[in-house]
Amino acid sequence: MPHIDLPEGVPGIRSALNYRPETAGPLLQLAEALLQADNTLSRGERELIAAYVSSLNRCYFCATSHGTFAAMQLEGGAPLVEQVNRDPEQAPISDKLRALLAIAAKVQAGGKSVTAEDVTAARDQGATDVEIHDTVLIAAAFCMYNRYVDGLATWAPTDPAAYEEMGRRVVEHGYLAPVRPA
Amino acid sequence: MPHIDLPEGVPGIRSALNYRPETAGPLLQLAEALLQADNTLSRGERELIAAYVSSLNRCYFCATSHGTFAAMQLEGGAPLVEQVNRDPEQAPISDKLRALLAIAAKVQAGGKSVTAEDVTAARDQGATDVEIHDTVLIAAAFCMYNRYVDGLATWAPTDPAAYEEMGRRVVEHGYLAPVRPA
Repeated sequence: MPHIDLPEGVPGIRSALNYRPETAGPLLQLAEALLQADNTLSRGERELIAAYVSSLNRCYFCATSHGTFAAMQLEGGAPLVEQVNRDPEQAPISDKLRALLAIAAKVQAGGKSVTAEDVTAARDQGATDVEIHDTVLIAAAFCMYNRYVDGLATWAPTDPAAYEEMGRRVVEHGYLAPVRPA
Repeated sequence: MPHIDLPEGVPGIRSALNYRPETAGPLLQLAEALLQADNTLSRGERELIAAYVSSLNRCYFCATSHGTFAAMQLEGGAPLVEQVNRDPEQAPISDKLRALLAIAAKVQAGGKSVTAEDVTAARDQGATDVEIHDTVLIAAAFCMYNRYVDGLATWAPTDPAAYEEMGRRVVEHGYLAPVRPA
């Protein structure tokens, strides 16, 4: 049961966003800028970074939702997302994305964990400064979203169909489209 | 030295915000909504929660800047902020704020650490659901801002006067006012 009086039957972060529209605006705009806006990292790659950090933070709602959104936008689908969460070193992804995921994992552990060597390794694989910036901020932002979702004990659906429905909406309309009441 | 090519001589998060205006907008709007907008928690109390979480995350720039902003807006000033960072249990603050700081510390450790008992304890001291929500989100947001600032290895001034100048600007104009180039 949620810790505070959140709207019932509304999944995960949506219940907290509905509860407090004053903060929902910037939180959704940040997600849109990081995960949906034009970028040299594909939407699937950015959702994969979000899902991986959420998995490291053991946030079921965010790991499942962004894992689903990543799977819908990456050729490898759900098996690739699972492989990345389990062992990014061995997953069949580009070496650039692998180096960026390593930076994301460092950020999840704490900002100071990121070393000049981690950044050089990503650059050696072709990552730009903007891509490194965006990876750090996606990872940092999911350390916020994950804590928001779990710190309020929001309700997470267990039916995969609920996440697929969210995924269709996000893939088609992004994070800023109004959500019809359930 | 910063990990990426951030503007020189611009302190802390400001250098990252200047570097990537696309994400600066929502990040600043979130700070404004959480720390400056009208609220039953005073601006000083909310800056104190931000400073406390930043101190737990050992983020020098954020702990010093938000600690300064809290000191400028709380009767106890800098000694109170130091006392809270060192030992919130014994600090001369309201029992409600003490209970909210305990929730903030749990969020910093991880969202799932927050228990129904922590929330009941805050309610027993008069905290409303909105105040509990805002405490969770301030703490979660500083787990992002702290990782952003340190994950990019931004430059932090060591001169207290630099933080006092930022503080005067924030206290007077909030987080959304344009910053004149240094």
